[in-house]
Amino acid sequence: MLHAIIMAGGSGTRFWPQSRRALPKQLLGLAGERTMIQGTVDRIADWIPPERAWVVTNRAQVEETRNQLPDLPIDNVLVEPCARNTAPCIGLAAIQILAADPDAVMLVMPADHVIQPDELFAEAVQSAVSLVERDPEALVLFGVSPTYPSTGYGYIERGDSQIDGRKNTWPVAAFREKPDRETAEEYLKTGRFYWNCGIFVWRADRIFDALAQFEPEMHERLLRLRKTAGSPAWNTALETEFPEMKSISIDYAILEKADGVCVVEAPFEWDDVGSWQAIARLLGSNEQGNTIDGPHCGIDTQGCTVRTTKDHLVATIGLKDLIIVHTPDATLVAHKDDENAVRDLVARIEEAGHDRFL
Amino acid sequence: MLHAIIMAGGSGTRFWPQSRRALPKQLLGLAGERTMIQGTVDRIADWIPPERAWVVTNRAQVEETRNQLPDLPIDNVLVEPCARNTAPCIGLAAIQILAADPDAVMLVMPADHVIQPDELFAEAVQSAVSLVERDPEALVLFGVSPTYPSTGYGYIERGDSQIDGRKNTWPVAAFREKPDRETAEEYLKTGRFYWNCGIFVWRADRIFDALAQFEPEMHERLLRLRKTAGSPAWNTALETEFPEMKSISIDYAILEKADGVCVVEAPFEWDDVGSWQAIARLLGSNEQGNTIDGPHCGIDTQGCTVRTTKDHLVATIGLKDLIIVHTPDATLVAHKDDENAVRDLVARIEEAGHDRFL
Repeated sequence: MLHAIIMAGGSGTRFWPQSRRALPKQLLGLAGERTMIQGTVDRIADWIPPERAWVVTNRAQVEETRNQLPDLPIDNVLVEPCARNTAPCIGLAAIQILAADPDAVMLVMPADHVIQPDELFAEAVQSAVSLVERDPEALVLFGVSPTYPSTGYGYIERGDSQIDGRKNTWPVAAFREKPDRETAEEYLKTGRFYWNCGIFVWRADRIFDALAQFEPEMHERLLRLRKTAGSPAWNTALETEFPEMKSISIDYAILEKADGVCVVEAPFEWDDVGSWQAIARLLGSNEQGNTIDGPHCGIDTQGCTVRTTKDHLVATIGLKDLIIVHTPDATLVAHKDDENAVRDLVARIEEAGHDRFL
Repeated sequence: MLHAIIMAGGSGTRFWPQSRRALPKQLLGLAGERTMIQGTVDRIADWIPPERAWVVTNRAQVEETRNQLPDLPIDNVLVEPCARNTAPCIGLAAIQILAADPDAVMLVMPADHVIQPDELFAEAVQSAVSLVERDPEALVLFGVSPTYPSTGYGYIERGDSQIDGRKNTWPVAAFREKPDRETAEEYLKTGRFYWNCGIFVWRADRIFDALAQFEPEMHERLLRLRKTAGSPAWNTALETEFPEMKSISIDYAILEKADGVCVVEAPFEWDDVGSWQAIARLLGSNEQGNTIDGPHCGIDTQGCTVRTTKDHLVATIGLKDLIIVHTPDATLVAHKDDENAVRDLVARIEEAGHDRFL
């Protein structure tokens, strides 16, 4: 059976002050009424029932996550004791799912991406699942055709011939780290490169075996943990084993080394909503190039993204290309070109002892 | 006896959102613990007792004004039914004071200026009062020596010879409207021009007679009103007469026409706190040229004025020469060069039906 694993442990710094430690991007409705994690569950709800939808999150976010997803069985929300990147996260989900369904296929995806339309996503997943059903060893990634020479994503280089003659399904020739601008432009020209969007399909036993092969210590710990699944000993075992696991991404741990890794070109639109500029892209902008969410009054204001609560007016005069985000206890005013510094800012706020605002 | 008349009916648009209709600049502590009107009363308290200190304000502000000045007799806070510029305001104060003290000398001043030090102000007023005691016809203005070619103030041109050989006391040769830049620079060169800072000393009966001469209709209305002073008929008469008076400044109505108008060069420092840039001047700035009042964390932020409440963090990245003012229900972000547009902004907020924020 097909199970969904939604990775939802994001730290919530990039959208500060909208996002907070206990309320990161995936728990916010940044680009709509429903929160991003609700949108992620909605997207698969027609073909994966709640019993087979799993969320991996952390302690700070678990309560709000369960509140937002009332249809999910409470035990389907797994809690990492600490952040250990995607390999241990996927390992943790795999042993839970294998306990329930030894024949499970996993659709692994982040909780905080925007994907449209739902139908094309469903078709693409179905295609990947049929690939895994034919070849139980297959490790399938979705690759997004780059629309500009991004230096912010990892790239997947595809091989030469389509697998089984399937349209848009290729073996992976190589993984490439985030490139410099020039390299990214070359990638774009060849038409052989995809963005790695972090959405995967594989059998649970296949990924678990791959961990045994490439990360034997992690596999040992997961095996010990698996023995306690469903018993009162689970929590103690999780506290013991999980923090000792290597913090490593599934890409580094498995995908760059294993056989059978293939890429399906994503037929859907994809946005990882990495910044306020993505919000402007998703929400659109008015004649002055402003994206406004909440009460605003502006004079000579262009290219700005303004977000405020419904009872708080933001007024602007003589501004260009700024991001202004008002929340009840903190306001950010940043130039669009500098918004990557929000992470540094959050660090500085912590240093200054202003933790209560984080 | 010397009475102080503090004109306090300012509309409070220029410092929006800090200032509001019911809480204009003079009722705020923009540059210190005490509010500006409290500072204005404090400044004269050593030599003018509360019984002889009068405040003219409007309905929206009267309650807060009385709260801030608990030592003033309640009837010393006069309430204009509507705004009618300074001539009716001063006329109103004059008839009240004349009812109590037919021999009164008036020191008229705005409630929202910063003057330092107090001692030099006291000396200058004493000098003006002695002038009025010698010459009951004298209408004395204080003139501030311009420190830069301002195009934002009216100018007073002094005559050639000092009055009675008094140091820095001159007949007024002419009043000049706000000049253009070039003219202002010429004024500055001659050394014969002062800024008109709106602080006056004269006998109450003298200004009242001058109103009879130059604004006979206004004088008639004031006479009718005067008859009801201290009686229950006052409020009704005020409602009838005051709104019918011509809206005109004391400068236009009297000072530009009357004989005996003279200027005393102000020996004190004066600032009319006309903008947020004045606040930066008064509070000083840090190494990055920022003036910060409240919790702030900034990266690459220069020449900015940031003001926020103690429980609300303002964070800034990549900004230069902006004014950011956070209040509980509204935030202003404006470029310093454009801050005069705050008045337009306030008009636009009203048009947009956002009155609750004004």
